[in-house]
Amino acid sequence: MKKEKPYILITNDDSIYSKGIKALVETASEFGDVIVVAPDKPHSGKSNAITLDHPLRVNKSNIFGDSIEAYTCSGTPVDCVKLALNKIVTSKPDLCLSGINHGSNAALNVLYSGTMGAATEAALDGVNSIGFSSLDFDHKADMRVCQVFTRKIIKECLEKGFPDCKLLNVNIPFLPEAEIKGMRICRQANATWKEDFEERTDPFMRKYYWLTGEFVNYDVAGDNDAHFLEEGYVTIVPIQTDMTAYKDLNNLKDNWFSNKLKE
Amino acid sequence: MKKEKPYILITNDDSIYSKGIKALVETASEFGDVIVVAPDKPHSGKSNAITLDHPLRVNKSNIFGDSIEAYTCSGTPVDCVKLALNKIVTSKPDLCLSGINHGSNAALNVLYSGTMGAATEAALDGVNSIGFSSLDFDHKADMRVCQVFTRKIIKECLEKGFPDCKLLNVNIPFLPEAEIKGMRICRQANATWKEDFEERTDPFMRKYYWLTGEFVNYDVAGDNDAHFLEEGYVTIVPIQTDMTAYKDLNNLKDNWFSNKLKE
Repeated sequence: MKKEKPYILITNDDSIYSKGIKALVETASEFGDVIVVAPDKPHSGKSNAITLDHPLRVNKSNIFGDSIEAYTCSGTPVDCVKLALNKIVTSKPDLCLSGINHGSNAALNVLYSGTMGAATEAALDGVNSIGFSSLDFDHKADMRVCQVFTRKIIKECLEKGFPDCKLLNVNIPFLPEAEIKGMRICRQANATWKEDFEERTDPFMRKYYWLTGEFVNYDVAGDNDAHFLEEGYVTIVPIQTDMTAYKDLNNLKDNWFSNKLKE
Repeated sequence: MKKEKPYILITNDDSIYSKGIKALVETASEFGDVIVVAPDKPHSGKSNAITLDHPLRVNKSNIFGDSIEAYTCSGTPVDCVKLALNKIVTSKPDLCLSGINHGSNAALNVLYSGTMGAATEAALDGVNSIGFSSLDFDHKADMRVCQVFTRKIIKECLEKGFPDCKLLNVNIPFLPEAEIKGMRICRQANATWKEDFEERTDPFMRKYYWLTGEFVNYDVAGDNDAHFLEEGYVTIVPIQTDMTAYKDLNNLKDNWFSNKLKE
């Protein structure tokens, strides 16, 4: 029998102290019973990283008041979700929400994103999951516009049900609400970072490097997230975890090792 | 004009001090000019993580002798590749080899793997790239059997050329050479870890958790890497970086937001 109120796990990668997770907790609370398990420090760019070389700590937090059950975890975003689902939740959540991230996770950013790493982990454990990201990377970002679209999307998921992949990557442009043109369900852009490293010298005359770079969209077909974000749309990309390049599979089987691999 | 000898970038996630990278450097040196940029400490399970919150250090290393140019990097496996390609190599490498990892990166392990994170990064930068992993996770593992198959696969790549995806995930069973039945080009298994956390109490009576778990193969169709490894084959999976769940894309477009998203 369906419970009356959905049970919603919330996490992120910017830490439990970020404005983005506060906004997400507020909005999700309109729909169900919220439980928060989030990192105790920022983990941007941590991807699907897990902690293997040291143990994890979990502490109860009252940062969202007495009515919201919340915990900090000393590990990565993925560790938070693994611990939440194995040791903390009282039943399997109906939904996992990760974010709202301060910064884009569109295009190839999905691969590096701790926000999406956490959401992916929940989906792998069979929990319908959404990562939300704002293109405003300022840690003081006003999340009210993001909340409008986060609300619409959570509502739609709960009413219409989830796709088979159980995982969505949502990105929200940094624009006033009136300038956002709508929402687009689309594919991941073939856009990435053209990296550079800034070279500096420390006070002891030793060199060190900071990762920098610029975002470049190589994708000429328009139906992708980077393109739609630029046009002023909120983007929704369904995400899979099978990394097999099926297009190359038969070609390789036909050509490599003189077909000796064929059965 | 094609250079006579291929220029090969080597990295890993177990650090420059591991037996696996030593074996890979030895084998790759039979084929071309090798340059090594590898982490200065272990980074197992670091996935595609990048370092954003502190600067990176690079140091020259003579661990492989005077004839092999080698560097340690203070960052993640992906940082190593980004730094190598942006600041260290003298020209674009013909090949990037990551590993040989001490432990399986088959099935869903590909998502968490630092070995595959590094290989993925090179592929994203247009370099044909292979991650090699041994199912023997012992850090003292004998890598000689792995070298036999690593050699066969590097040779095939250089002779036959790479698939479009530019990225291969190779796993080698922990068996004597005579018991390995051959190689199989196949897809990623729908197999994963059923996690658990071991709960312990520290000397100050505070709880902490260690991630543990067991590997479970849910994949009933036999043409996948977890299955073939169990049967005694070396597996080769071509890997893509477009995470879009295309199967769900049209279904979502048709059903969500009352088609209001349609153009």
